[in-house]
Amino acid sequence: MERKLILVTNDDGIAAPGIRSLVEVARELADVIVVAPDSPQSGKGHAVTLSTPLRLHKVEVFKDVEAYECTGTPVDCVKIAMDIVLKDRRPDLCISGINHGSNASINILYSGTVSAAMEASVEGTTAIGFSLLDYSFDANFEPSKPYVRSLIEDALNGKFGKGSLLNVNIPNLPAEEIKGIKFCRQSDARWEEEFVEAIDPRGQKYYWMTGKFVNRDKHNGTDIDALEAGYVSVVPSMYDLTDYGMLDKLNNGKD
Amino acid sequence: MERKLILVTNDDGIAAPGIRSLVEVARELADVIVVAPDSPQSGKGHAVTLSTPLRLHKVEVFKDVEAYECTGTPVDCVKIAMDIVLKDRRPDLCISGINHGSNASINILYSGTVSAAMEASVEGTTAIGFSLLDYSFDANFEPSKPYVRSLIEDALNGKFGKGSLLNVNIPNLPAEEIKGIKFCRQSDARWEEEFVEAIDPRGQKYYWMTGKFVNRDKHNGTDIDALEAGYVSVVPSMYDLTDYGMLDKLNNGKD
Repeated sequence: MERKLILVTNDDGIAAPGIRSLVEVARELADVIVVAPDSPQSGKGHAVTLSTPLRLHKVEVFKDVEAYECTGTPVDCVKIAMDIVLKDRRPDLCISGINHGSNASINILYSGTVSAAMEASVEGTTAIGFSLLDYSFDANFEPSKPYVRSLIEDALNGKFGKGSLLNVNIPNLPAEEIKGIKFCRQSDARWEEEFVEAIDPRGQKYYWMTGKFVNRDKHNGTDIDALEAGYVSVVPSMYDLTDYGMLDKLNNGKD
Repeated sequence: MERKLILVTNDDGIAAPGIRSLVEVARELADVIVVAPDSPQSGKGHAVTLSTPLRLHKVEVFKDVEAYECTGTPVDCVKIAMDIVLKDRRPDLCISGINHGSNASINILYSGTVSAAMEASVEGTTAIGFSLLDYSFDANFEPSKPYVRSLIEDALNGKFGKGSLLNVNIPNLPAEEIKGIKFCRQSDARWEEEFVEAIDPRGQKYYWMTGKFVNRDKHNGTDIDALEAGYVSVVPSMYDLTDYGMLDKLNNGKD
């Protein structure tokens, strides 16, 4: 059987330790091509680059793995990978990450990691965004590897259906304390912003965005619950944002 | 009764004609405060600015309307509006646009216009993103005004429920040819990218993103259908991206 092909990207940049871990796991299971941003792109959400051109360079970053760095956002990377790098081939799977930091709950909106995976899903390719709940550059990705491996295997075996999208978050725990995988829903949370005001050397005011994560979800079965209980959270996600409940209500109230 | 308060933003920048039309309609119905990007931010999706500080300046752009320009993305504008400009007040409604160009279907993902509205929705404020299907700077926003007005009135009167989010697109037609408003779902479409390759004066290759919008949705009731039939499309949308159908399947197959 022909070896399958996995496209790997991330939002922390091609030199981040997280993507290195992901490539290590993926290459044991399939052929791997990397197209990732040439600089950190955290918080870029589903941004695309429209008003400036993009650059794409082949780089030797991973031993024996074809890799390209791109000047654009994570979503740009997936688009240019599909159109230029993989012109005549389709990947069997797109994986993004491993992100340094949580993309659980509402973070999915701001996340370049999951947005890159979502873009692949829009293009019909099964996709997974992986994140570890440790923001530090020298985070330990070893305990996450068996779970990353098993989810990639399941995806390659068609468990999730073609074009599906998973948002995977891994608790920052030693291997022996991770309890397994839980399929769950996105928790309803938000960031309570607190902009920090400061004055620059020219006397002008500026603001740093900061904030507190507030989980306002009172029900069970969320990704935040799963992570707090020591599980890897897997949220099947989608790019159809229609609120069908509200749509029914509006059309029935009207007709 | 106290006059209600509307927060207005956009993604084409505070000087764009589209936001001027929106302010004109909104100020007839409520008090208005504008916090919008100081430069065009098309395609910024749900991006936030994390690694650089933000600036916020009070500007005299609209006669007798309190307005601020911000150096950040559309989502940044809503966050800083809620935390700094409206520190001790909550707006009754946030409206974003009127965008120069379509945000129907899959464009909702890339759209700074709708993402700004979505951010307000995350913060519990009812929100509407408005877009006109004309990309030109000198687009004619006059025919859209009665529909914009009626949707703002409905929202202020609580028709859509607190914290709800609408993605509104307006066909580029003369007033007499617009047939009315249709509540509908997001069409399943995608952009087929075609990156245009070019060589810069230093001999280096670069790429411009371009593409063709392909509507692959074969069923009725979509926003694209409504727009093609001459209706204003209104898609009730949400920030919970969980695929509940797939979640059920995964948990039932497993347990």
